[in-house]
Amino acid sequence: MTTIFDAQTPALVADAAILAGNIATMARALPGDRLRPHVKAHKCTALAREQAAAGHASFTCATIREVEGMAAAGLGEDLLLANEVLDAFRLGDLVTAGHRVTVAVDSPETVRAAAEAGIREVLVDVEVGLPRCGITASGAGEIARAATKAGLEVRGVMGYEGHVVGMPDRTEREAACAESMGLLAEAHDAVGGDTISAGGTGTYDLNTLATEIQAGSYVLMDTAYGMLGLPFGQALGIISTVVSVSGDPAAPAWAVADCGLKALGMDHGNPSVSRLEGGPEPTVWFCSDEHLTFAPNGPIRVGDRVRVPPAHVDPTVAYHEWLLISDGEAVVETWPIDLRGW
Amino acid sequence: MTTIFDAQTPALVADAAILAGNIATMARALPGDRLRPHVKAHKCTALAREQAAAGHASFTCATIREVEGMAAAGLGEDLLLANEVLDAFRLGDLVTAGHRVTVAVDSPETVRAAAEAGIREVLVDVEVGLPRCGITASGAGEIARAATKAGLEVRGVMGYEGHVVGMPDRTEREAACAESMGLLAEAHDAVGGDTISAGGTGTYDLNTLATEIQAGSYVLMDTAYGMLGLPFGQALGIISTVVSVSGDPAAPAWAVADCGLKALGMDHGNPSVSRLEGGPEPTVWFCSDEHLTFAPNGPIRVGDRVRVPPAHVDPTVAYHEWLLISDGEAVVETWPIDLRGW
Repeated sequence: MTTIFDAQTPALVADAAILAGNIATMARALPGDRLRPHVKAHKCTALAREQAAAGHASFTCATIREVEGMAAAGLGEDLLLANEVLDAFRLGDLVTAGHRVTVAVDSPETVRAAAEAGIREVLVDVEVGLPRCGITASGAGEIARAATKAGLEVRGVMGYEGHVVGMPDRTEREAACAESMGLLAEAHDAVGGDTISAGGTGTYDLNTLATEIQAGSYVLMDTAYGMLGLPFGQALGIISTVVSVSGDPAAPAWAVADCGLKALGMDHGNPSVSRLEGGPEPTVWFCSDEHLTFAPNGPIRVGDRVRVPPAHVDPTVAYHEWLLISDGEAVVETWPIDLRGW
Repeated sequence: MTTIFDAQTPALVADAAILAGNIATMARALPGDRLRPHVKAHKCTALAREQAAAGHASFTCATIREVEGMAAAGLGEDLLLANEVLDAFRLGDLVTAGHRVTVAVDSPETVRAAAEAGIREVLVDVEVGLPRCGITASGAGEIARAATKAGLEVRGVMGYEGHVVGMPDRTEREAACAESMGLLAEAHDAVGGDTISAGGTGTYDLNTLATEIQAGSYVLMDTAYGMLGLPFGQALGIISTVVSVSGDPAAPAWAVADCGLKALGMDHGNPSVSRLEGGPEPTVWFCSDEHLTFAPNGPIRVGDRVRVPPAHVDPTVAYHEWLLISDGEAVVETWPIDLRGW
């Protein structure tokens, strides 16, 4: 049996109990179709299957590859591509084959791409305060009319309050979320439809407008979301081997683990480090391509293992081929991260 | 014929002429075994084959997977794993099969792992000022003796002046390189052997001690190295499609391209953006998982394409499956990035 002490490193590992707890906690708060889990956070159909087993049949995707992979895994009952694409033609065959695929549109060009692809259903994507995709609330009705005219069924609206989900103070987060959702409500009035799709892990219980929440990070969590006091535990870390120790192992100047920039999303900054077998908390110094240099703040030896929780889960997972699931020291599952790429 | 205007995006694309120029320029400066190209920068055996065609038969690798892939591609004449590993046993079969594999060692543990794996040759890795792997210069002799005692042939020393290669001022870089190499020379005096392996793209013509230079970035280059005035052109960019434009396309507030955190190494900061068809230079605002939000500073339309040169090549390449090679607008080659993972 492989353990976290002999698995090949760097190894992306999630704790089975914390993972199951996160899925159960969310399923209680947002049962069934109240949650549309976002697969971009884990890119793993085996993990999506656990979410499906908890009652969620509809999923959110960020890329065409994610849609394709979810459909191929038999999880294509109701897939939302919550993103604008001009190569929607890649999705036509999935729709023909009976998978339900809804795409986000926010412009005449994306409406046309969807219609020409044989896509049947869309959501109008609304900009709710984050300067990214989405039409203004006041322009949403016109996009909906263009979609209808092109023969598409408009299921409703979506709008991601991405500038809100990470706000540390819950009261401020709630107020900012309400302000964002005011824009989405205005758009929905103009667009109609049954669906108001929005939200993320940071607003899963604050967003009272959305008919479905697109949370994804709650399953694995990261250090950024970990600071918000949410009822989800940090399941994910990278198990890494200490490959070099500078100076006396009893009082080393620094140590180096085999987990670097090619194993870590770095946009939220450095990861943290903890020892697998207890002991003083190390201090991270910096990452190189394949290395993490840190002050061990106590004895450490070449061959010791550390856990490296990334600052940002999503771009971290996208570097890895496998997600190991651990139960204590034992590695009990090895799941392919099969939704990578575009 | 696929072009950069219809290739699926985000697409990692290198310009054929700039690539060939970079390889030729380096091969003139450091012919044959004077250069040991580092494959970590591109992780692509097809590109390594171009370097081999330019006369370089020995290569540097950062991971066991890179060594395995290079050997499998028939490029295993002289591979240096310039990194400490405890799972050297994974390399034993390659050595038995006749590939020449040399590994870096800096501790009794890594010496033992190499010897037990059936590795025959090592370099003593020396810390030359960058707090990462490597034994101190004064401790190098002891590691060499341990290796010899374990039945390993010590080919010499290596030491990477990674804290030096990016220094903007050439005179300072040269002085700092000389200081670093003073330590490596001291270590070499104690260790012996024919090989002094060191250097990178930023010191390729300043490091006068090294018998071989481990440069890798010179082939593709990035914006960080681009500021040093080196004779290598920026070959690499990510071709990306504008999927959303905010406001009037004639005077938009912002635009969004499909190139985000999962397509870009972010440790050196944001990428830059330029238009494929000329026009005002855009200003990058921020990256999300699958999006790059930027101010176009002039008209832009949904469906337009932009080129996104990453701030740091190595962790960018590691996200992508394919490297397209372009000649003008035409995509003339599609090379698998086949050395990813560990």
